[in-house]
Amino acid sequence: MTQRMPLQPALQRALDRAVAEAEKSWSEGGIPIGSALVSSDGIIVAVGHNRRVQDHDPTAHAEMVCFRAAGRRRDWSALTLVSTLSPCHMCSGTAMLYRLRQVVIGENRSFQGAEEWMQQAGIELTFADDERCVALMRRLLEERPDLWAEDIGE
Amino acid sequence: MTQRMPLQPALQRALDRAVAEAEKSWSEGGIPIGSALVSSDGIIVAVGHNRRVQDHDPTAHAEMVCFRAAGRRRDWSALTLVSTLSPCHMCSGTAMLYRLRQVVIGENRSFQGAEEWMQQAGIELTFADDERCVALMRRLLEERPDLWAEDIGE
Repeated sequence: MTQRMPLQPALQRALDRAVAEAEKSWSEGGIPIGSALVSSDGIIVAVGHNRRVQDHDPTAHAEMVCFRAAGRRRDWSALTLVSTLSPCHMCSGTAMLYRLRQVVIGENRSFQGAEEWMQQAGIELTFADDERCVALMRRLLEERPDLWAEDIGE
Repeated sequence: MTQRMPLQPALQRALDRAVAEAEKSWSEGGIPIGSALVSSDGIIVAVGHNRRVQDHDPTAHAEMVCFRAAGRRRDWSALTLVSTLSPCHMCSGTAMLYRLRQVVIGENRSFQGAEEWMQQAGIELTFADDERCVALMRRLLEERPDLWAEDIGE
């Protein structure tokens, strides 16, 4: 169930960065998913891309890399997570652990993560339904379905 | 709601390792929570302890460090996660992403994570209600309540 919403400029910039991160990962031979964390005043405090292949790390989804890069802090609930793809249970659980209020989802046509959980926890989801994000996943699914299956534990 | 269950020897050994990991973390100035991943034939394939303080990493809960240490693999559903404390939403979400079938919880008196979610996803929870695990958290809560609050996003 996708309801496309126009993004605020700061969130659009963050999604653009997340897309660039995803492309960077693909160029490295990795999984093309990217994320950013944005403060309430529109500053991008961290970016990241999936690093499963690059670091041999099964927890290195883009969102987790982004949370890691944001470091130790106490202002999580003021941050918005922006991701090119609907976050899985691990990444959604992390957003819930840190009581984020908003998550921006680049697309959820290729994969629908734990959206219902996040909504039940009071996280506002914003669906960008971005064609670039859809194209990133289409290429992955066509060219490296094995990597994708591994990434979501299938 | 804690229903204490006797552990199979392989799982008891894994819990003992997890407790030792937790003590190691405390001796390093870190958060005393430890985990292990055990194969269906009782082999401990990875251990880990919370590394928030040690690595300045907000995703480094013991369970996540353990998943990371287990590396890229496709046999997740045959592994059991053993942790000294009831896993939070992030760590429970990871157990769900990788379709684990069993999680052993050292104690859930100090903190109750996303147990209901895991159960709804069909994960069998085993509650050890281990006094050593309770003591580890009691000491943390008495001596470093700030660190604990940070670790669970409070």
